[in-house]
Amino acid sequence: MTKAVRTQVCIIGAGPSGLLLSQLLANAGIDTVVLDRRDQAYIESRIRAGVLEPGTVTALEEAGVADRCHAEGLKHDGFNLAFDGDRHRIDLVGLTGQSVTVYGQTEVTKDLFARRNAKGQAFYFNVDDARPDDLLSDRPTVRFTHDGGEFEISCDYIAGCDGFHGVSRTCIPQTILKTFERTYPFGWLGIMVEKPPVADELVYANHERGFALASQRSESRSRYYLQCDPGDRVEDWSDGRFWDELALRLGPGIAANLQTGPSFEKSIAPLRSFVAEPMRHGNLFLAGDAAHIVPPTGAKGLNLAVADIRLLSRALIAFYRDGTDRELATYSARALARVWKVERFSWQLSMLLHQFPDHSPFEQRMQRAEFEYIAGSETASRSIAENYVGLPLE
Amino acid sequence: MTKAVRTQVCIIGAGPSGLLLSQLLANAGIDTVVLDRRDQAYIESRIRAGVLEPGTVTALEEAGVADRCHAEGLKHDGFNLAFDGDRHRIDLVGLTGQSVTVYGQTEVTKDLFARRNAKGQAFYFNVDDARPDDLLSDRPTVRFTHDGGEFEISCDYIAGCDGFHGVSRTCIPQTILKTFERTYPFGWLGIMVEKPPVADELVYANHERGFALASQRSESRSRYYLQCDPGDRVEDWSDGRFWDELALRLGPGIAANLQTGPSFEKSIAPLRSFVAEPMRHGNLFLAGDAAHIVPPTGAKGLNLAVADIRLLSRALIAFYRDGTDRELATYSARALARVWKVERFSWQLSMLLHQFPDHSPFEQRMQRAEFEYIAGSETASRSIAENYVGLPLE
Repeated sequence: MTKAVRTQVCIIGAGPSGLLLSQLLANAGIDTVVLDRRDQAYIESRIRAGVLEPGTVTALEEAGVADRCHAEGLKHDGFNLAFDGDRHRIDLVGLTGQSVTVYGQTEVTKDLFARRNAKGQAFYFNVDDARPDDLLSDRPTVRFTHDGGEFEISCDYIAGCDGFHGVSRTCIPQTILKTFERTYPFGWLGIMVEKPPVADELVYANHERGFALASQRSESRSRYYLQCDPGDRVEDWSDGRFWDELALRLGPGIAANLQTGPSFEKSIAPLRSFVAEPMRHGNLFLAGDAAHIVPPTGAKGLNLAVADIRLLSRALIAFYRDGTDRELATYSARALARVWKVERFSWQLSMLLHQFPDHSPFEQRMQRAEFEYIAGSETASRSIAENYVGLPLE
Repeated sequence: MTKAVRTQVCIIGAGPSGLLLSQLLANAGIDTVVLDRRDQAYIESRIRAGVLEPGTVTALEEAGVADRCHAEGLKHDGFNLAFDGDRHRIDLVGLTGQSVTVYGQTEVTKDLFARRNAKGQAFYFNVDDARPDDLLSDRPTVRFTHDGGEFEISCDYIAGCDGFHGVSRTCIPQTILKTFERTYPFGWLGIMVEKPPVADELVYANHERGFALASQRSESRSRYYLQCDPGDRVEDWSDGRFWDELALRLGPGIAANLQTGPSFEKSIAPLRSFVAEPMRHGNLFLAGDAAHIVPPTGAKGLNLAVADIRLLSRALIAFYRDGTDRELATYSARALARVWKVERFSWQLSMLLHQFPDHSPFEQRMQRAEFEYIAGSETASRSIAENYVGLPLE
């Protein structure tokens, strides 16, 4: 016996994109159902990005979930690029008048879950067979098994916020869907450690041994990354090996302040650029990682997803408030216009900061020349800064 | 019987670099000898670049040879980037306060020859066996055959202004010389025609069929280029085929104003990025194409050579005036710092505007995203503009 559930928007995926969408829609009186393959505890334990654009913080404010971010997030007015020991600070405030906020995606997710649960959001967790259907009709459905029972969500719209490996994108026919992809010949080995950061601001370092990033989550918690071989396993990297390599790549000037300790998280992630077009099929709308992946170098993954959600939530609210689907009709094109620019920046910064095994000596020098140009040009630095704090939503 | 000639600076190469150097040094009372593999008529007939940076015009003014350039050169306050029919104007004056001057390299060369000949410059033409020697001594020499006689120029310094195929660079031992090179998988097919330009300002167009450039030399003389296969021969391209293809690539909006006619010059040039380090060996100094080649996309070849000559002439004048070789000692490093930035810009613009047969769909979209980013960002446009009018000399 199938249980029928009626809602206005069915949101697949309870990561920050889906949660933020449900919160923004709820604030406008729009009913949603949220389902996810995992459960809340699992989702809240995933370690992800940690740098929020001002526009992302604005979205959290609009959603009414920015209090803890304001209280605990760290304002960063700049960050550093390092190249074989030379450093150049990108003065975000001086160049753009804006800062970024260091506040973990995990914390954003917790804040959103707390609010949604307090408001009685309908969640279905541990749903691993969601089947969106009837996408071209005005009454699309999502069917799934949950707790041993069959469910059928009937809705006006489906929001695919279920990430790169989710089902939503696969519902767009292969004859319609176009995908664009680049994989990078290395991964990022990341660790989290309960020690104060090596520097007040982030340091992105290109060293002849590979890229390193000194990031942070708070004044007492640091996040460090090393470019690693794509075939490396976490077991290959003891904490000792990690710290030694990090110190080499950051260089003695920075590493002198490095406080090491036992890592409490260590993982390797591949680097990928990916875009799927279109981001709408019938009454299914894709947002976030379901439609695009950026390499993490520019800290854009979460921010780009939130930008999608801002556009999508406004379009849905306009529909329910004014009865116009004008914004919905242009959502995919408007979102993709921004997506490609953010992909470009993430690609550019990735190309600037990593060691590429297949680069010719000329290309290596072009990389160095790019750094020198940025370091010597206020305009080039401003370009980096404007992208880092976030391009306009439209 | 060898004829011995004594001078202060022996300049190998009577192209614009060598001629400008001889003129600037002569103005400071420094004696030079200039030799070249070709003769004046041949050198003056070579068709080369046609866009002068303000700094290049300043150098011509300092040399006292800018009158005709001022009278006949065309001030261009901007230029256009086109991408599959979309256009974006780079407002040079609005973004940088500076213009560029359209004035052919051929005309610069004629002006310099006229002045040097009027001043009795010592020239040796048709010298095809110049042999620089004793570079590490304080009395380097250049030996060669001329008019059936043997000559030995004895000097303080040798300036290698003899281009990519010249002898000067080859005098730097292989153990010392480092070279960096990139060849591009296409050439430029260029024609000159006695017709007014299709547009007031230059148009650099990326079209799915390949790059096209609508340039000019005067209000009645146009210069057009098409990206072509590296294996193409001039005979493959009738004027008719050229005009048809150009019209397609410029698009109907621009091509509507195209005035065609019989070409009076047609040639194919390969595209190459090349840098040699160092630019000094003992008392030999390289300048211009002898040390570096840029793809022509950014119109930087002549401008970069002139920048070298400005640095080198100042260093030599400081030596003869004050007895200090401080500027000579740092010439190579200072010139190369700028060379690499200009190489970067020329490479960036080349990567933006051409069709690359080996590009993935993702890379094609990155190219499009770069255009969209430039078109939508004043900062990105300013970066292009600042490079186009010329980075600071140091």
